[in-house]
Parts: sequence; C-alpha cells; structure tokens
Amino acid sequence: MTNVKAYAAAAADAPLAPFRLDRRTVETDDVEIEILYCGVCHSDIHTARNEWQNTMYPVVPGHEIVGRVTGAGSGVTRFKTGDVVGVGCFVDSCRTCSNCRDGLEQYCENGHSQTYNSYLQDRKTITYGGYSTHIVVTQDFVLKVSENLPLQNVAPLLCAGITTYSPLRHWGVGAGHRVAVVGLGGLGHMAVKLAVAMGAEVTMLSRSAGKKDDAERLGAHHFALTTDQEGVKKLGNQFDFIIDTVSAEHDYNVYLSMLKTNGVMVLLGVPPVPADVAAANLIFGRKSLVGSLVGGIRETQEMLDFCAEHNIVSDVEVIPMDRINEAFERTIEGDVRYRFVIDMKTLKD
Amino acid sequence: MTNVKAYAAAAADAPLAPFRLDRRTVETDDVEIEILYCGVCHSDIHTARNEWQNTMYPVVPGHEIVGRVTGAGSGVTRFKTGDVVGVGCFVDSCRTCSNCRDGLEQYCENGHSQTYNSYLQDRKTITYGGYSTHIVVTQDFVLKVSENLPLQNVAPLLCAGITTYSPLRHWGVGAGHRVAVVGLGGLGHMAVKLAVAMGAEVTMLSRSAGKKDDAERLGAHHFALTTDQEGVKKLGNQFDFIIDTVSAEHDYNVYLSMLKTNGVMVLLGVPPVPADVAAANLIFGRKSLVGSLVGGIRETQEMLDFCAEHNIVSDVEVIPMDRINEAFERTIEGDVRYRFVIDMKTLKD
Repeated sequence: MTNVKAYAAAAADAPLAPFRLDRRTVETDDVEIEILYCGVCHSDIHTARNEWQNTMYPVVPGHEIVGRVTGAGSGVTRFKTGDVVGVGCFVDSCRTCSNCRDGLEQYCENGHSQTYNSYLQDRKTITYGGYSTHIVVTQDFVLKVSENLPLQNVAPLLCAGITTYSPLRHWGVGAGHRVAVVGLGGLGHMAVKLAVAMGAEVTMLSRSAGKKDDAERLGAHHFALTTDQEGVKKLGNQFDFIIDTVSAEHDYNVYLSMLKTNGVMVLLGVPPVPADVAAANLIFGRKSLVGSLVGGIRETQEMLDFCAEHNIVSDVEVIPMDRINEAFERTIEGDVRYRFVIDMKTLKD
Repeated sequence: MTNVKAYAAAAADAPLAPFRLDRRTVETDDVEIEILYCGVCHSDIHTARNEWQNTMYPVVPGHEIVGRVTGAGSGVTRFKTGDVVGVGCFVDSCRTCSNCRDGLEQYCENGHSQTYNSYLQDRKTITYGGYSTHIVVTQDFVLKVSENLPLQNVAPLLCAGITTYSPLRHWGVGAGHRVAVVGLGGLGHMAVKLAVAMGAEVTMLSRSAGKKDDAERLGAHHFALTTDQEGVKKLGNQFDFIIDTVSAEHDYNVYLSMLKTNGVMVLLGVPPVPADVAAANLIFGRKSLVGSLVGGIRETQEMLDFCAEHNIVSDVEVIPMDRINEAFERTIEGDVRYRFVIDMKTLKD
C-alpha cells in the first residue's frame, strides 16, 4: 500500500480539504499512475454534496484523469513506465455479463466499479478518484493517450468527450446530417467539436446570446437563440439529431418539434425532475427520445484516438488543487469555458 | 358524380345518422370501390365528437376499408373491376417531398390527404370516409387484398394492422427478441399476432387479469399483470421492445424500467396529457422512447401480403350500420374483442 495525498469531502456540507488515502500495491494486472491532470465534472459536485443521496464519506472525486505510468504488474502487457495514460468514469466491471462482453461496460448488468464513491468488484473496497496524486487501475480499464495533445486539455475527454462521442457514433452521425447541440458547457462544447469533426452541419442552440461567438469559434456552423420564439418556430423539422446536454429542468417538446422525420434527440443530462413528453411529438414524424451514458472502454480508446487524429481537445481553465472549492462554485454558475482541470503537481508540492 | 349513402355526424354532440354524399366521377387514375366492410377505429370517435378540435362537419368517418372494384379510369393499370382492395388512413399525398419519395406518405411534409375530415391535394375538396357505400380513390393509394382471408376481419388491418406492423418492421423485431405489448385492444391484439408471427417472444402486459386467456389465445407466450407490484419488479431489464398501445394517461417510466440495454419503447397511443419521463430511465441503458404513425402505402401492401401469408387477421364483431352509435359507446368502454366492423351491405339495403 502507498499512502498518497488527495482532496476529499468529509460531509455533504463540508468543503473539499486535504486528505490522505492508501492506494493498493500493484498487483499482476495493475497499472500505477502518477496523476498529472484531473478534470472537474459536475458529477464530482453532485457526489461531494450528496445530491444523489448515495455518497460514502469521505469521498475523493475525479474521473477525468490523465497521468503517467510509474509502475506495472507482471501481467501488464499494454503499458510500461513512462507511458501517458487516461482513466475515465469506471475502473472495473464484471466482465462477464452480455453488456461487458459487448464492450458496454458502462451498462454492466452486475454493476461496474466507478472511479470514485463506488466499490471494486470485490464489492467491499471503496474507490477513490482522481483528486489525488496517484491511482492504481487494472490494465483493461486504462486508456492510451497521445502525447501529441496538450495533456491538461485531454483530461476532460475521459468523461465529457466520451459522453458526447458515444451517442454521435452509436446513432451514426456524419456528413449530410444536421445536428443541434443544446447547452454550451463542458459536454456541449465537446459535442460541437466532435460532431463538426464527424462531418455534420452543427447548430448551437442556447438561451444566451453571449455564447454565439464561442459557438462559432468551436466550429458550429449556426447559432440560434432558444429564447427567440420566432426564431424557434423557424427551426421546426430541421435536425436529424439533437444532442441535449442540459441538466437543468427544460422543455423537451420544443426540441422534439425541431427534429425531422426519424430524428433522434439524445439526452445526456439528468434534470432534477421528470420532463413532460407529449406522445404526439414522437408519433408525428417517428421521432426518438433516447439517453446515453458515457461509453465503454473500447469506444473510449477509439474516441481518444479520434481526438488525437483530428486534434480535438477540451477548452479548459487550469487550477491548482487548493482552488477546487471556488471551481465548484464557478462550475455551478456556468462560469468556466469550458472545464476546470486541476494541475495535480500543485497537490504534490 | 355519384350520390351515395353514408353515415355522418352533423355536430360534435350529434349521433351518427344517415347522410348522402357525392363521390367524384372516376378520373384517369381513379379506382371506384364498392365498400364491403369498414372497421371502427377510435379515431373515428375522436373526430366525430371533435375531440381533436379539427372536425369539419358533417363528417363521414371510416379509414379501415375493404371493398370490391366497380370501375377504373383509363390510366389504372394495377386494378380491374371485381378485384378486392383496401383503403387505409390516407387517400393521397404530395408525392414530391422527401418522405413521400421514401414511401413514408404518413409523414408527408406538405400534408397528406386523410381518408376523412381532410382535404384532397387540391386543398379544397373535403374527404369523406368509409362509413358509406362507395369511395373513389387514386390508384396509388389503393391496396391489393387477398381473397383468401375473411374480408370482414381484414378491414382493421388497414389501420390497426399497419400501425403495429410498421414499428415492428422499422425497428427490426424478430426471432430472439423479447417483446412486450401494453394494452389489449384493437392495436394491442394485432401487435401480439404480428410480433409472434415475426418470431419474437411476446409478453402481454395488462391491468386486467381477465385478458390472460385472450392474450394466450392470440399467441402471446407470457402474460403479466401490471397492477401486481411484485410481478412488475421481476420484469425489470427484460424486453428488447415494448409496444405501447394505450391512449389513456399512464406512467411510461414503469415500462422503461422493463427494457433491456438498447431497448426501444414504441408509443402508438396519444394520451390526453403529456407524460412524465425521467431522463435517467433512458440514459442508464441507452434506451429509446419513440413514436410511430400508421405506415406508408408500400409498407401497408407489404403488411397485407404478410398477413395473407401468415393467415393473420383481426378479431372482429360485425355490426350493421345502424348500430354504429352503440358501437362507439362500447368501443369507448373497451367492450369489444377487438374491433367493430360495419357490414356495409346493411347500409345499401
């Protein structure tokens, strides 16, 4: 066991504060990783504050991890000391259910091991996330990361990147498709970049006119204000796909009306209360309202390779570890373009 | 013009009563049809009573029409006098929009001509439906019907049949799939028969234990009571597809929980108010909530041919025309197994 530095929340109403935890000694298939950067996902905040009523304290958040291999077990074949690697939202799964066999570990029927606030597959050992200097992960859940990309900007790909990449791929978005992205935040800005790279014609839908310049800078071909009733009417029957990244309460029906026949609206955010859906808005036009959760390990590697090939990374604001509580507040306020990333050497010093 | 007998509603609160209307003289591409049987769809009631606030009175309902060709224009190549034919929910469409070109006339972007309470493509001539002795329809919207099936039982295939067949085909239901059907009525009983014929393992979900014997007689492999909380829990993560035929207000989330990963819930009914949908129920399992509206002409012919090949028809109760008002009441009460069909010779006498 190695005792390492971390930041943890001790209770729902406690700020994150310095903490120490033990990482297991490297076993046969384990990769030991020195964490270089860790992204700050809204899930980290929900969990730290027990907003999903399932937090086991103390909790060490963080599941957008980029680091360098510092050790590997005797059975590790794909990684060696010095490699740059990533770890995303989960660190193991049952590997035997039909979803795991299909590479859909995110939907593991027996329950995967999330990177923090979860149990390893022994169903006893609690997991601690990336707000720490090191992590030990079994090799099949470690991703290869290209050193050609700026690593602090790569970290958010491990959650925000794969969460948007997976549905775009699963529903076959590509050239000739008109795609709308709802909400320009951590997920939304990645959805724009990825859909553009896949060849789609992308429209950013936002309530805030101030996002127009950014949307265009990110590559969106069009921008539409959803607060403009007349403008919204003109968007009827326009899109093959809508990627809805919003977690706040909002009206799905407005967006369903913007879908063409056979159009698909993908939900990535979980609003605090269920939303009204009028069946007629799906029936007239054979439309689909669907959901998608991160992505499997194989697909996450594919996403990282795609991003390296297309030079796609997240727009980030790098912070030292001791500014995490301020970053939480600013994330809640939407005051970040578009993801905070912790420079983990600030925790080591 | 030919003046023919019909039954019409003169106002939202008026019972259906004898009426006369003019059918146009056969034009080049027209087929004149003596109506033998017409099914009674719940839409007929909604329209007769102006429940969708769009009824043009007097209205002659009926869009599940089976009849015999009595005349044809000089350009008609596919039908001749004496042929048995069908007419479904629409009698023309723009034929030029991308949906029409794809054989999806039900989603015609310029507005198809419904069989009643609608306009022909001249946007001036009001359409009158199958509660009448004859109808004249342009040949491309007339279907061939096999004489090997009992024609009174074929009539409901033109709406209830295609409405269930189309989504089963579109989403590729077949052998190896577990399908649940919600609601055992006009649509539900066809969904069971068709899904079984396509090779799926079919479970009937109903609030009424009294439907168990019927469900099994129709071919369902399993029956589950949705009022049994313990039983419902056991149905979690079980189905590849759920065909929801219910038009009354009900909770979609219960059914979404019964879907496997990648499962699809198809809405065919339009409840009077929007339903609550919790995004998490779609996201955890990459599930789809979709809608589907009848089917295109090409697919309707395919459905009729499929039914002839597999000896599938609707279970019906045949009534004379003058009992239509009683049939409306009994349809509303769900007191029919599973579709009323009007024997149109009772109107001619």
